[in-house]
Amino acid sequence: MFFHRQELQHEAKPEKPDAIYARKLQEVLGGQYGEITVAMQYSFQAWNCHIPGKYRDLLFGIAAEEFGHVEMLATMIARLLEKAPIGITEGAIQDDPTVAAVVGGMDVQAAIVAGAGARPVDSNGNPWSGSYITASGNLLADFTANAAAEMQGRVQVARLYHMTDDPGVRDMLAFMIERDTMHQRQWEAAAAELRAEQLENLPVPSKFPRPKKYLDAGRQYINFSDGEHAGEGSWARGTTPDGEQFVYVPQPPPGVPLGDVTRPDERFYGTTDEPNLVEKVAGTVKDALHRG
Amino acid sequence: MFFHRQELQHEAKPEKPDAIYARKLQEVLGGQYGEITVAMQYSFQAWNCHIPGKYRDLLFGIAAEEFGHVEMLATMIARLLEKAPIGITEGAIQDDPTVAAVVGGMDVQAAIVAGAGARPVDSNGNPWSGSYITASGNLLADFTANAAAEMQGRVQVARLYHMTDDPGVRDMLAFMIERDTMHQRQWEAAAAELRAEQLENLPVPSKFPRPKKYLDAGRQYINFSDGEHAGEGSWARGTTPDGEQFVYVPQPPPGVPLGDVTRPDERFYGTTDEPNLVEKVAGTVKDALHRG
Amino acid sequence: MFFHRQELQHEAKPEKPDAIYARKLQEVLGGQYGEITVAMQYSFQAWNCHIPGKYRDLLFGIAAEEFGHVEMLATMIARLLEKAPIGITEGAIQDDPTVAAVVGGMDVQAAIVAGAGARPVDSNGNPWSGSYITASGNLLADFTANAAAEMQGRVQVARLYHMTDDPGVRDMLAFMIERDTMHQRQWEAAAAELRAEQLENLPVPSKFPRPKKYLDAGRQYINFSDGEHAGEGSWARGTTPDGEQFVYVPQPPPGVPLGDVTRPDERFYGTTDEPNLVEKVAGTVKDALHRG
Amino acid sequence: MFFHRQELQHEAKPEKPDAIYARKLQEVLGGQYGEITVAMQYSFQAWNCHIPGKYRDLLFGIAAEEFGHVEMLATMIARLLEKAPIGITEGAIQDDPTVAAVVGGMDVQAAIVAGAGARPVDSNGNPWSGSYITASGNLLADFTANAAAEMQGRVQVARLYHMTDDPGVRDMLAFMIERDTMHQRQWEAAAAELRAEQLENLPVPSKFPRPKKYLDAGRQYINFSDGEHAGEGSWARGTTPDGEQFVYVPQPPPGVPLGDVTRPDERFYGTTDEPNLVEKVAGTVKDALHRG
Amino acid sequence: MFFHRQELQHEAKPEKPDAIYARKLQEVLGGQYGEITVAMQYSFQAWNCHIPGKYRDLLFGIAAEEFGHVEMLATMIARLLEKAPIGITEGAIQDDPTVAAVVGGMDVQAAIVAGAGARPVDSNGNPWSGSYITASGNLLADFTANAAAEMQGRVQVARLYHMTDDPGVRDMLAFMIERDTMHQRQWEAAAAELRAEQLENLPVPSKFPRPKKYLDAGRQYINFSDGEHAGEGSWARGTTPDGEQFVYVPQPPPGVPLGDVTRPDERFYGTTDEPNLVEKVAGTVKDALHRG
Amino acid sequence: MFFHRQELQHEAKPEKPDAIYARKLQEVLGGQYGEITVAMQYSFQAWNCHIPGKYRDLLFGIAAEEFGHVEMLATMIARLLEKAPIGITEGAIQDDPTVAAVVGGMDVQAAIVAGAGARPVDSNGNPWSGSYITASGNLLADFTANAAAEMQGRVQVARLYHMTDDPGVRDMLAFMIERDTMHQRQWEAAAAELRAEQLENLPVPSKFPRPKKYLDAGRQYINFSDGEHAGEGSWARGTTPDGEQFVYVPQPPPGVPLGDVTRPDERFYGTTDEPNLVEKVAGTVKDALHRG
Repeated sequence: MFFHRQELQHEAKPEKPDAIYARKLQEVLGGQYGEITVAMQYSFQAWNCHIPGKYRDLLFGIAAEEFGHVEMLATMIARLLEKAPIGITEGAIQDDPTVAAVVGGMDVQAAIVAGAGARPVDSNGNPWSGSYITASGNLLADFTANAAAEMQGRVQVARLYHMTDDPGVRDMLAFMIERDTMHQRQWEAAAAELRAEQLENLPVPSKFPRPKKYLDAGRQYINFSDGEHAGEGSWARGTTPDGEQFVYVPQPPPGVPLGDVTRPDERFYGTTDEPNLVEKVAGTVKDALHRG
Repeated sequence: MFFHRQELQHEAKPEKPDAIYARKLQEVLGGQYGEITVAMQYSFQAWNCHIPGKYRDLLFGIAAEEFGHVEMLATMIARLLEKAPIGITEGAIQDDPTVAAVVGGMDVQAAIVAGAGARPVDSNGNPWSGSYITASGNLLADFTANAAAEMQGRVQVARLYHMTDDPGVRDMLAFMIERDTMHQRQWEAAAAELRAEQLENLPVPSKFPRPKKYLDAGRQYINFSDGEHAGEGSWARGTTPDGEQFVYVPQPPPGVPLGDVTRPDERFYGTTDEPNLVEKVAGTVKDALHRG
Repeated sequence: MFFHRQELQHEAKPEKPDAIYARKLQEVLGGQYGEITVAMQYSFQAWNCHIPGKYRDLLFGIAAEEFGHVEMLATMIARLLEKAPIGITEGAIQDDPTVAAVVGGMDVQAAIVAGAGARPVDSNGNPWSGSYITASGNLLADFTANAAAEMQGRVQVARLYHMTDDPGVRDMLAFMIERDTMHQRQWEAAAAELRAEQLENLPVPSKFPRPKKYLDAGRQYINFSDGEHAGEGSWARGTTPDGEQFVYVPQPPPGVPLGDVTRPDERFYGTTDEPNLVEKVAGTVKDALHRG
Repeated sequence: MFFHRQELQHEAKPEKPDAIYARKLQEVLGGQYGEITVAMQYSFQAWNCHIPGKYRDLLFGIAAEEFGHVEMLATMIARLLEKAPIGITEGAIQDDPTVAAVVGGMDVQAAIVAGAGARPVDSNGNPWSGSYITASGNLLADFTANAAAEMQGRVQVARLYHMTDDPGVRDMLAFMIERDTMHQRQWEAAAAELRAEQLENLPVPSKFPRPKKYLDAGRQYINFSDGEHAGEGSWARGTTPDGEQFVYVPQPPPGVPLGDVTRPDERFYGTTDEPNLVEKVAGTVKDALHRG
Repeated sequence: MFFHRQELQHEAKPEKPDAIYARKLQEVLGGQYGEITVAMQYSFQAWNCHIPGKYRDLLFGIAAEEFGHVEMLATMIARLLEKAPIGITEGAIQDDPTVAAVVGGMDVQAAIVAGAGARPVDSNGNPWSGSYITASGNLLADFTANAAAEMQGRVQVARLYHMTDDPGVRDMLAFMIERDTMHQRQWEAAAAELRAEQLENLPVPSKFPRPKKYLDAGRQYINFSDGEHAGEGSWARGTTPDGEQFVYVPQPPPGVPLGDVTRPDERFYGTTDEPNLVEKVAGTVKDALHRG
Repeated sequence: MFFHRQELQHEAKPEKPDAIYARKLQEVLGGQYGEITVAMQYSFQAWNCHIPGKYRDLLFGIAAEEFGHVEMLATMIARLLEKAPIGITEGAIQDDPTVAAVVGGMDVQAAIVAGAGARPVDSNGNPWSGSYITASGNLLADFTANAAAEMQGRVQVARLYHMTDDPGVRDMLAFMIERDTMHQRQWEAAAAELRAEQLENLPVPSKFPRPKKYLDAGRQYINFSDGEHAGEGSWARGTTPDGEQFVYVPQPPPGVPLGDVTRPDERFYGTTDEPNLVEKVAGTVKDALHRG
């Protein structure tokens, strides 16, 4: 169960309106790595979790906070839009290039659809999609995805920090950056703990018994490009993170022939060079077709 | 530039047709974490890379291999469909529950749209989307996302391994699982190398100067749920992965009031309790409207 | 701020596994009118609300409950999947038509992607989309949309009730149907209260001053089809809901001519019958192009 | 069958070009509540209608008109784009901030893709989606959705009215606003008629026999937020729209425990704390895998 | 303006219900190349047409017919669903593998969402999308796209013909196949007429003045794969369709170096090997950040 | 298998940055008819091809080149963004209308998400979709679609040519236009060769045996609009492209009655005028429901 309290975790007051910036903030509200994504991602991971206790508690504990971050951003966005010139025509003002630029740079649906409000979309107006989230039931895979999501999110908020000099907006973003800092740390720590407790390990999923037959394929860096520095990294020589030895293969070995083309049932009418197809199909269907 | 050679990296021959399994394999061809995703993700990371040399070589080198994995899967899927009963009606056979189950379980568009061929979609027929990829220009954030993608991909292929007992399919999957093993290892190694070379560090982006004001917010695990084990993990006490100290906050501290509602321009016709709105708007627009 | 408590509002325990039914339940979790939709819709309406007090309280109060309904459904779905035969191959069992039918009828991504878990998608696997919600800032328009959403949702849950005879599932659905009953009632009551308090009225938005010129167009039922009963309803004769008189127009009056086609700049290369286009364009671009 | 006559229902001539406004108008052509939506929504409701006669006539009658509204908007948009500076470079003009603002604010695909034409997209360029429509077969649920759609549409057109002072555009919008007025009235009247004729009633679907067990859940306003005014509305006390009594519950009662986590088949490789998983899985798959 | 007549162009009565087939038919109603696509595509081409007269008449004339085809399919689909076992549970029947297969193979949203009705989606339940249509304003490009669409559509309907033996369904499909035959012919004829009238020619757009500099690039077949038969076709040697000479280039010539990587503003926090980045950024932002 | 060489097929260096133009170029990278589309379309056609040899070689040969075009565009876009003012705030500069216009006209996600890089999206930020491609297995249908795609692509690039005067950009576009010229020619030639070799013919699919019953429907232009010039074209009179005679039908003949409405199972709760529905449903479900 979720409960709502009519408070914000942190102040969300801009000093002045800025409709263009409101659009940009939508990215971290409703974008691929926005707050809706992490709130939903951690929630679904918790609901699909197969271990009770601390890991699931962690997922629930952060998920609920992230819904509150959605709320902070929605509040901030509505305020950035509140007094901004967002398209309402008044006399000569529409010829003002500044106003025109605002209308050009803002999310026009914020005005037309939401009446100067926030929406569950990204900074290009793409609606938030359930396909953004990751929840596989494998916690090491998922915690790594969570760490990655917090990194992408923190990069985006850091960029957004430099796209405004409004002290109210910057203050809220600085706070959010620190929460992203914390969440990055937590997912890294939680991934390490899973490994320490032997619940999961590299390569993920670690319980899958690796076949002897293709163990070589699991340690070769086969370079399908021609970069001359490809073999210099620690991913090409030396020890793998889980204790085997990398092997560098500068040129892909020959493959196997493509093999025969497929020849599906002729009634799919794919183009083929088999003779007599007309006759074969015709024989099958003409009775039904030609009766009329 | 990309070049194609009419060979497969590994054999892709099923022992027998299986249209339902063909549909399932679409997940790792055209799904969120399928081969199209990683091929495109690594390509865009390479094209947006800001350092020449080994890291970009690595991206190009694996990207091109992944396009070849798309090809292996597409070939396998077409072969699984080739002789399968995929909906063509022939006399009494359509009353056979086995055939009906095949048609129920397969991707019907594989027959109707592709004529028994592979498609750039996932196992539910959702078309592959550019929103699946991650390419931020920040390599630690991106390599972490790559490691996460390979983990999810390997989990999915491992599951698919258990969903068939066709030796030809299993052989190809076993090979692909090992390539995913290798790629997991590489992204983990590359992420470690970035940190060792001080090009990037935790928290990502590490070059953003953290504000003193909210440093506490960057180390507190504030639990917004009520799980009693939330504070037991290494993410709640002890040292953070980058050397600070975690602090556990079992109950969120009070927030700030929601504050005033917004009151946008009345011509957005949002509902408000301001009096005299009718008169204000009417004064503005009646001339234009009432002329007729 | 949102808080989570590790409890469910109502029991969510099926008597037995049923992977096909799990897929169907996804509709009311992540479909157009599922619980994610209403939770998000009421939340955004609250965040964009321009009146403090009871209406906003109502929005927040129900929104948070709906997030808990998402949780109940996610829990139920994971349990329906837990012990179901969802595609893992074991010996002869894969030839069993019942198992084949299960695999045919289930959401295969529930197995491949989520490892037997719930996902933010509908019963066809379409990911939840931010475009499902409605939050315009006009409360009468929005509360009417909310009532409509609860009606569609209740219709769907009622249909789902008849698609299972599992007593555990039916018990949860019966509870949810009653909550939908309540929410329908509330939005109808709230819409009536808005009108009683003269905050908004029909036609929505009621503050827009209607032009005299086209008042007739606002009361005519112009029938663009040829149904002979079209004029019999209360929508064609008698008093409109807001006190004017309907007028039935059985045949659309003549329109206006389509008018001239557009002739955009020739450098868009639209096909046109204007002569000399080649010369005009050539004159403009040849210098740049032909230098080589 | 549908027939087309080369006339417009109303004049669609702007006084001057305005590419930015053309983009905004796309919202009511191809957006969530644009004319394509209502034309398709009423058509599918008619095709899925289970009662012949006046209700279906009404649906067909308005649906066909709405296709004509799509046409009016498409015509207007093409004309707004016809002579506008939409990105073609000519000498110094590209440094003109006004031109730059136009290009910034317009839908660039209108130029690049459509050659200065209208497109089936919204004002942010999202393509129209079949997921926008509602057609359940339950007429009271659907007519309520129709009334809601006309309200949202009228709000949007009213907003758009204030975003231009072009008399030609305003004239067309004023006409469309009145048609939306009429359609709102009709769906309200039709919903009332369904109830008067006892074909359907509240709560929708009214034929579902409500279980005694949870009747209380059908009349309680359980407040999951902390708004102090939540209990003041007519939705919390007094009579429900269908004659029962509302009950206000200021604090949600305790729920039920979350219950056991799920433990799906180990071959999904979800993370779990069950011991010996490696051995169990290994036993199952090693033969197949390790043969090589 | 569009007008509706309550008739179907052709009979749409199945002999018996078939929910699985209803799902398949959705492909040609709401799929990429279904009837909604062609109806919308021809309509938008007509609305964006820059020549009055016969070409635009042709577009309007076929567009309106295609809306009627949508209607025929929607009617047929609803009838195929009407008496089919589509998921309602009745006693033991749910254990019947035939019923289970039906539920597995049908579009479950047809039952849950539409109450046994048609929907604007394809055979996998993907909603119809405005991105399916093509309307560029260049008539030769568009008529070629139309011919291609009719070909794909006819291929799909022909496949669907073989997926049923219901005489009522086959009769309607046979009629539709002939209409697709006609429409293919018309777009081919119309494309030829455009060329005969010199309104447009190959290469499209023919009015673009081809630069001398790269004329060779316009006639070379550069083979980026290694197929040994690539040079045998008429696309590699001999005369091009517009009178030049093809040249076969069996191996791509060397390209140009990739060139320098980009080095965007450091405040995007892309990873780079430039020294002193921390200091540069810090100097810029520390004042704002460190005040607290 | 695909191989990558770290070269570009053609130079991709702009003379100066231009973020607005970068956004426009995204259309031909990641749009409906961009280079990702043709690269993927030709690849899937090759993988689903049913004839070995020259046709498949052609598909592979061009597909791989198109992946290289994606690379050229991605490189160009990153360079156009590299030094452009894309939203980073520095002192007074944000009040400069030119900068504001840039931010208004650019793809803001290029900055926030990609850190000044290219993305797999179109010029409105819609992610590339697998639904853009066509690969039916019928080569004449597919090659016609390919010709159409190259035409649309060439039209778009030609338009883009006129939207910049940057000599570096224009040079690359001029080269790409010629490659599109070549590819148009090839698909036209390949389609002609298929017909010359009798592998496929008009109408597509030519192997489907046309029923005598509806041959008339296959040659009639039935005009569903009222354009007076509709019958003047070669599509209405004279010989069809495959040797029959067109017939012009200026008015659609009468259709057939719509027929009975459907009456699905009452437990779908569709609205119907059948009496006693309540009783029927109640009898079925009350036991289960009313036990409590």
